[in-house]
Amino acid sequence: MVLIPEVSKLSRSAFRRLGMTPPKTPDAPPARLSLISRHLAPVYPINTPYAVERLPSTVDTSLLPRIRARHLTTTTSKMSQPAHPTLLIPGPIEFDDAVLQSMSHFSESHVSAGFVATFGETLSMLRKLFQTTDPASQPFVLSGSGTLGWDLVAANLIEAGEEVLVLGTGYFSDGFADCLRVYGANVTELKAPVGTKPTLPEIEKALSEKKYKAITVTHVDTSTGVLSELKNLSALVHKVSPDTLIIVDGVCSVACEEIDFDAWGLDGVVTASQKAIGCPAGLSISMFSGRAMKAFENRKTPPSAYFASMKNWTPIMQNYEAKKPSYFATPSPQLVRALHTALSQILAKPVAERFAGHKAASDKIKAAVGALGLKQVAANPDEQAHGMTAIYLPEGVKGAELLPILAKKGVVFAGGIHKEIVTKYIRFGHMGVSVLDPTRGDIERAVKALEEGLAELGYTKP
Amino acid sequence: MVLIPEVSKLSRSAFRRLGMTPPKTPDAPPARLSLISRHLAPVYPINTPYAVERLPSTVDTSLLPRIRARHLTTTTSKMSQPAHPTLLIPGPIEFDDAVLQSMSHFSESHVSAGFVATFGETLSMLRKLFQTTDPASQPFVLSGSGTLGWDLVAANLIEAGEEVLVLGTGYFSDGFADCLRVYGANVTELKAPVGTKPTLPEIEKALSEKKYKAITVTHVDTSTGVLSELKNLSALVHKVSPDTLIIVDGVCSVACEEIDFDAWGLDGVVTASQKAIGCPAGLSISMFSGRAMKAFENRKTPPSAYFASMKNWTPIMQNYEAKKPSYFATPSPQLVRALHTALSQILAKPVAERFAGHKAASDKIKAAVGALGLKQVAANPDEQAHGMTAIYLPEGVKGAELLPILAKKGVVFAGGIHKEIVTKYIRFGHMGVSVLDPTRGDIERAVKALEEGLAELGYTKP
Repeated sequence: MVLIPEVSKLSRSAFRRLGMTPPKTPDAPPARLSLISRHLAPVYPINTPYAVERLPSTVDTSLLPRIRARHLTTTTSKMSQPAHPTLLIPGPIEFDDAVLQSMSHFSESHVSAGFVATFGETLSMLRKLFQTTDPASQPFVLSGSGTLGWDLVAANLIEAGEEVLVLGTGYFSDGFADCLRVYGANVTELKAPVGTKPTLPEIEKALSEKKYKAITVTHVDTSTGVLSELKNLSALVHKVSPDTLIIVDGVCSVACEEIDFDAWGLDGVVTASQKAIGCPAGLSISMFSGRAMKAFENRKTPPSAYFASMKNWTPIMQNYEAKKPSYFATPSPQLVRALHTALSQILAKPVAERFAGHKAASDKIKAAVGALGLKQVAANPDEQAHGMTAIYLPEGVKGAELLPILAKKGVVFAGGIHKEIVTKYIRFGHMGVSVLDPTRGDIERAVKALEEGLAELGYTKP
Repeated sequence: MVLIPEVSKLSRSAFRRLGMTPPKTPDAPPARLSLISRHLAPVYPINTPYAVERLPSTVDTSLLPRIRARHLTTTTSKMSQPAHPTLLIPGPIEFDDAVLQSMSHFSESHVSAGFVATFGETLSMLRKLFQTTDPASQPFVLSGSGTLGWDLVAANLIEAGEEVLVLGTGYFSDGFADCLRVYGANVTELKAPVGTKPTLPEIEKALSEKKYKAITVTHVDTSTGVLSELKNLSALVHKVSPDTLIIVDGVCSVACEEIDFDAWGLDGVVTASQKAIGCPAGLSISMFSGRAMKAFENRKTPPSAYFASMKNWTPIMQNYEAKKPSYFATPSPQLVRALHTALSQILAKPVAERFAGHKAASDKIKAAVGALGLKQVAANPDEQAHGMTAIYLPEGVKGAELLPILAKKGVVFAGGIHKEIVTKYIRFGHMGVSVLDPTRGDIERAVKALEEGLAELGYTKP
């Protein structure tokens, strides 16, 4: 449940009730910026990372304005963004208004009670999103691109000279492999042809040939739209190579594809804020198992990065989640507020419903793409992601011509990124509000634009 | 000069003029979110990092709504933030409304023409802020905390086993030294007593004893408020150890202390968004000299980080600045938009005026602190920062008691962070709008709150 204080009218009087002097704005209009996700700032406890254990809480909640509970909804949210082309690339996605408004939260200290509580709740909510109740699981939220999650794995869970098996599905698994090599891992890439994924027998064979510290899998390779299956993969690894850590790149899957962290026995999932989670880019978000954290603690050498060091961040994340101020490097209060809002919206319904909603929209899109006579990069329906579709262009149609036409129709798709086929396909992202809020009509407009755009370029359905 | 499109009324009709279908919001209220810094999204060029060279520009600017130029001003900006305690810690600072509104910019592709132009302009504006006209200088803007700047230096400019001299001024120089060690540097710390900095003769002696790849100096050590002098320091290093790179931690100095990058012969300055630059936290911002970039290119070993690798980011930054879409890891469009707004505001006036404004405010604050009979951690006026003041508490007054009293008066100061004196002092940050917009009255209220708060705790001026 999300509590929203009614600050728009109360704030000045509430300020006085709190014994604070409101800023000198005698003719101030009703507060406009970012009202939805904001709590009236409580009285701040002492503002220092070292002071945690020594100080009593100085927040006297009896003085705070009374809060009326209501659920966050997205129903009217798209009304207040200026008209703009609908962003349907595989991230960043379209954002809900409440999330965007949280981005403009007034400045607050990274160790203030209000922000610490928000950050702590955010970390706890991530446990629900990843479906882990094991208290040994450890969430991390760091300022950075999603790519920073690869460094987090490579610099903390792997030591120089250790073997890692990377399941090769495209551009993003190649990137993960590169990152692992930078930190000294011996990487074996088990590559599948474009548009497919390595098979379980191939993986079993690879696992039997070497002892791997970790296996990495790109849940959805954003370059191809190939979906990897995690449950049976994880069961296989646990069976044939039980000491191998199972690490998932979930950048384009978390919050749109099912991930059952505990039940499937995963050891790490790294993702980013701007995809299906629906929060602007700028946060690396991850979850690691107790087993992964133990592997980190048992390293023989210190972690090989500083900003991406679990040694530096683990106590900070644990303190934040325990609602204790703590400091290693300054987090972004605005981005964390926005993530809090996004996660509150996601968890207002069962996550299974969210996954089903993405699957239903994806099925429709893929049927429409098929009806247009187009082929997907991921040919096998079992290997098709539910948050994006990578579509081969018809013979004679250039992405360089089609994408600007779609943009003029108010729909932004992405071009190709996989080197082997870069000019031959386009990518259609369908995550978050664009698929879950049917009143937006984003998907219908996109499909219609695609059909019209192709026709304008002379394409006729076979 | 900052151009602001008048989008609030034009957007729907302009959308139609562009041949785009506006989203179905027939009864949409006037757009509210983030209107100030937004340009109506232009027609997007093809949306792929690989497509840069092959495509003509698809942005037909003749179709864009006409833009009426006016300067960004901060005069009315505080009106639309909800009442909240004034944040006067040494970062994050209070933000201008236009900057906060840019944070809620609608979602856009990280490789769209509009965003690429904004990012490119942002990088170019950083050159002006750092006062470098040397085309070989290279700016970086990465998603991350300010701390990531240390990794950028340690993983790219230094190779394992190389010697680095760290000028020790407190908590933050210790942190930089730790980071350098993680990446294999042999660090020599030349430590000064708390509240002071190493002297030039001490530094000259140290430089004569070993050949250092780099020397690092914390321009303002946020833990003590000690200001290091860069001009004479740099001249000394160039004289006695000309091959040594001069690296400045400018987290708490960039945009409030003078930094004349070219004239002083600096090789690297790393900073963060949330201090005097006045943009929410979440961006690591840095500038490196041609000499530093050459040192990077001449490495014998590859960079020892992936996300913080200059090899990965340099071409991206150069492409963005040339207004070409490019991809390594997804930047945060919202944070970059906000940084663009902040830098536009900063550069609307000569930077010298900005530094003088901070000095004038700082002088007033330090005089008021002295008049209260309080001592500063940085005792020597020549070593006192102009964007913050570290104030020793009077005998018998505890920070744990004083800070909550100040907070109740609507002013948030920070506690101590330097281990040797952590409970003995507080920190007062005075950067950005709080000092440059006198109509806010932030500084006067803060000084008054400090005086009253101390009196409430039984302190009487000597």
